[in-house]
Amino acid sequence: MNISERKLTLLCDFYELTMARGYFNSEIKNKIAYFDVFFRRVPDGGGYAIAAGLESVIEYIKSLKFEDSDIEYLRSKGIFDEEFLSYLKGFSFTGDIWAVPEGTVVFPNEPIMIVRAPLVEAQFIETFVLLALNHQSLIATKASRIVRAAQERAVSEFGARRAHGADASVYGARAAYIGGVNSTSCVLADKMFGVPAGGTMAHSWVQMFDTEYEAFETYCRLYPKAPTLLVDTYDVLKSGVPNAIKAFKAALSEEEQKSCAIRIDSGDLTYLSKKARKMLDQAGLTHCKIVASNALDEYLIRDLLLQGAPIDVFGVGERLITAKSEPVFGGVYKLTAIEDENGNITPKIKISENAIKITTPNFKNLYRFYSKETGKAEADLLTVYDEEINENEPYELFDPNHVWKRKTMENYTLRKLLVPVFKNGECVYQTPTAMEIRRNCQNELFTMWDEVLRFENPHNYYVDLSERLWQEKNALLKSAKSKR
Amino acid sequence: MNISERKLTLLCDFYELTMARGYFNSEIKNKIAYFDVFFRRVPDGGGYAIAAGLESVIEYIKSLKFEDSDIEYLRSKGIFDEEFLSYLKGFSFTGDIWAVPEGTVVFPNEPIMIVRAPLVEAQFIETFVLLALNHQSLIATKASRIVRAAQERAVSEFGARRAHGADASVYGARAAYIGGVNSTSCVLADKMFGVPAGGTMAHSWVQMFDTEYEAFETYCRLYPKAPTLLVDTYDVLKSGVPNAIKAFKAALSEEEQKSCAIRIDSGDLTYLSKKARKMLDQAGLTHCKIVASNALDEYLIRDLLLQGAPIDVFGVGERLITAKSEPVFGGVYKLTAIEDENGNITPKIKISENAIKITTPNFKNLYRFYSKETGKAEADLLTVYDEEINENEPYELFDPNHVWKRKTMENYTLRKLLVPVFKNGECVYQTPTAMEIRRNCQNELFTMWDEVLRFENPHNYYVDLSERLWQEKNALLKSAKSKR
Repeated sequence: MNISERKLTLLCDFYELTMARGYFNSEIKNKIAYFDVFFRRVPDGGGYAIAAGLESVIEYIKSLKFEDSDIEYLRSKGIFDEEFLSYLKGFSFTGDIWAVPEGTVVFPNEPIMIVRAPLVEAQFIETFVLLALNHQSLIATKASRIVRAAQERAVSEFGARRAHGADASVYGARAAYIGGVNSTSCVLADKMFGVPAGGTMAHSWVQMFDTEYEAFETYCRLYPKAPTLLVDTYDVLKSGVPNAIKAFKAALSEEEQKSCAIRIDSGDLTYLSKKARKMLDQAGLTHCKIVASNALDEYLIRDLLLQGAPIDVFGVGERLITAKSEPVFGGVYKLTAIEDENGNITPKIKISENAIKITTPNFKNLYRFYSKETGKAEADLLTVYDEEINENEPYELFDPNHVWKRKTMENYTLRKLLVPVFKNGECVYQTPTAMEIRRNCQNELFTMWDEVLRFENPHNYYVDLSERLWQEKNALLKSAKSKR
Repeated sequence: MNISERKLTLLCDFYELTMARGYFNSEIKNKIAYFDVFFRRVPDGGGYAIAAGLESVIEYIKSLKFEDSDIEYLRSKGIFDEEFLSYLKGFSFTGDIWAVPEGTVVFPNEPIMIVRAPLVEAQFIETFVLLALNHQSLIATKASRIVRAAQERAVSEFGARRAHGADASVYGARAAYIGGVNSTSCVLADKMFGVPAGGTMAHSWVQMFDTEYEAFETYCRLYPKAPTLLVDTYDVLKSGVPNAIKAFKAALSEEEQKSCAIRIDSGDLTYLSKKARKMLDQAGLTHCKIVASNALDEYLIRDLLLQGAPIDVFGVGERLITAKSEPVFGGVYKLTAIEDENGNITPKIKISENAIKITTPNFKNLYRFYSKETGKAEADLLTVYDEEINENEPYELFDPNHVWKRKTMENYTLRKLLVPVFKNGECVYQTPTAMEIRRNCQNELFTMWDEVLRFENPHNYYVDLSERLWQEKNALLKSAKSKR
């Protein structure tokens, strides 16, 4: 069932309702607000993130509607007046949204979504927007790291049982696919999004038969196309692999034997895969693949490959579907400007005791510079919404924290990263299929320098501010103090 | 929308379907299988876990049904024959389930759920059962740790925006409440489960007004009952707290002033809360509470209290809703026995290269011994399903890993922890409300020794096997080797 059929309107934080009623009862309600969604750092100390979750946001916004039971519930809280409740009955989203397409490579401190809407509406959608983008970007980013560590070997996602609930398994599988995994174990993710689902047997299959050999042979006869036998129920090398070899030979044709595989799910994966590879090769099963699983992630996969483990396919479970090493993608939703009835836009800033929490004000554009020579992405740039850049002229970038660091871009092409998603409440964006998004993501990664993609101590990709935006931010920082 | 309305039948792993068809096509399909759900260790090195998620499992099992579109999808995979597909059309769960009630304090290596059903059915529900119990037990357990660290101070859950999808926020909020938090920010969790929702303002509220004072005063006039003002938009001590004091005095009656609060969401919480406390007290607002938030968990809360931070309420977000320090609850679903047409039960075991992965065979009972003298829980005991224990006689327990360690229980009461949930496919269990579950959980914690509840290096609570079960396990371990 899609998000849009789920009646998730009340999946908000209570403060969005208390604030909404507050705005509703004041003249502020007629103002238009601008909010940016951005994150401050990449999980795991990585150099890049993969945006995902937009489709869920679209479905949520399209289906926003306070049901009678929602109104009844809110009335029972005793703090919302009838005028406000009757306003909620007719509530829908009438604003504009721009976002980077799913699968886009994104960096800290740049908006991956901008919401422009009447204040109450813009504030109300905060929680769902964040939870969908945070969750799915987290998993897509983690998947991208794991897939890179596997160096062209296939990666299969099978974490459903350790996911944080039903949505985490289904939308997590989709996000993992966007981030580059080849398949999932989650059947519903296949039915809903076309993420290829696969899987063969659990240990219980082997236990159900009188002997391991019988379990294997029965399976091969049932599924002669690419059977994968789980060889660690009793003893991988003394029992599992010999029985698998015997079953492949007995039940499969020579052609079928070329697509068989074994899976090792416990023990020392380097040692066992090397020994198993030898046994398979000696039996003439040189095409037989070795699948390894058991608490894998990018770090373990890198180590296994460094040690020369002859593993062909990695099955990744809990450490991908929960992004275990750092399970939080810290996207935030911050007010950047307000617009009055005459269309005048006033930028807003949030100061903080923690310098990193200071926001970049105003309604903005986000550009990516590509070198015409190499095709590689060189830097991202934030400008005030109405600034123009002439692609035929050099453009001087500077580091917003170290303004003496300057670099002049020449011979570049520019790409606007944010695309229109909603216009006056109407969805104007057609979500590509998960497969298309995955391909776009892979193409984007080709435009990134290896230094940015390294998964430890990566090069900091530049996200710069235009001179005008930088000046505006600094002026606001100074004047904010007088707001007290 | 409840799990039961969500059409989640295909939220399974693909191998459950390939195995199901395999069993369906063999005489094995008439066998009854027994599966245990258990976990091997408590996250974060804790001494106990809180079981949760049963209600979701019940809703899922009640609503199991392959829709036409599910059958169509499966047919398109090209590996399931029509006979099997037409069997799936009429599929439902006809077996038995026992489980510990939600909120029960549980320990590693004991079944928190037992499923007894025709093999195909029992195997099919594996993924959803695990994902619901794993997710919700993870969050309930984490919440229990955080609440204990807060030492009677209120804890409010506000992690929705960092949760792993919609379910993670809603069911996570319910689980956190079961584990002991006082409230949530998640409105839908309140509507669905009665978890008290609350919340006041975001930084954007303060930014929307010309001055911080105006934002505060407007808020207090709107919500004079227990307003909480967020004081860190500009500068906590120079601006936020003085403006809050001024607004409380201007907008609230003396009675109302007794229930006001401020919230600090950044900066050094110890320093700021101490300074703020002084300022509030000097202004006569001695009842004004201080709420603190910003990436809190049990470790940070313990440190803040050790340093004497005068914080009254802790708002916990991402580190609770994702169980950030260890986001995986490793519950597994393992075959323990099969039963033939004549009712003969044959225990099954799974050996492994990793000794910790060896299972305890057979259909079992789970008992908890309470001392009549202290009322405290002393040990849990697993027995073969048909063993009787006479509560009036002493009972000798022994450590299954160190059999010379023995202890004779005298003057005890026994409690069967597993209660019937499904009988012949019918639900025979009435789920208590979240509030009742939460209270039961608190009562259970009173029966645990402090040593078990310590959150670092806790005492290992005993989960023992009866002599007969231990003998059976060892006999199977020996004979399993001949199964190869």
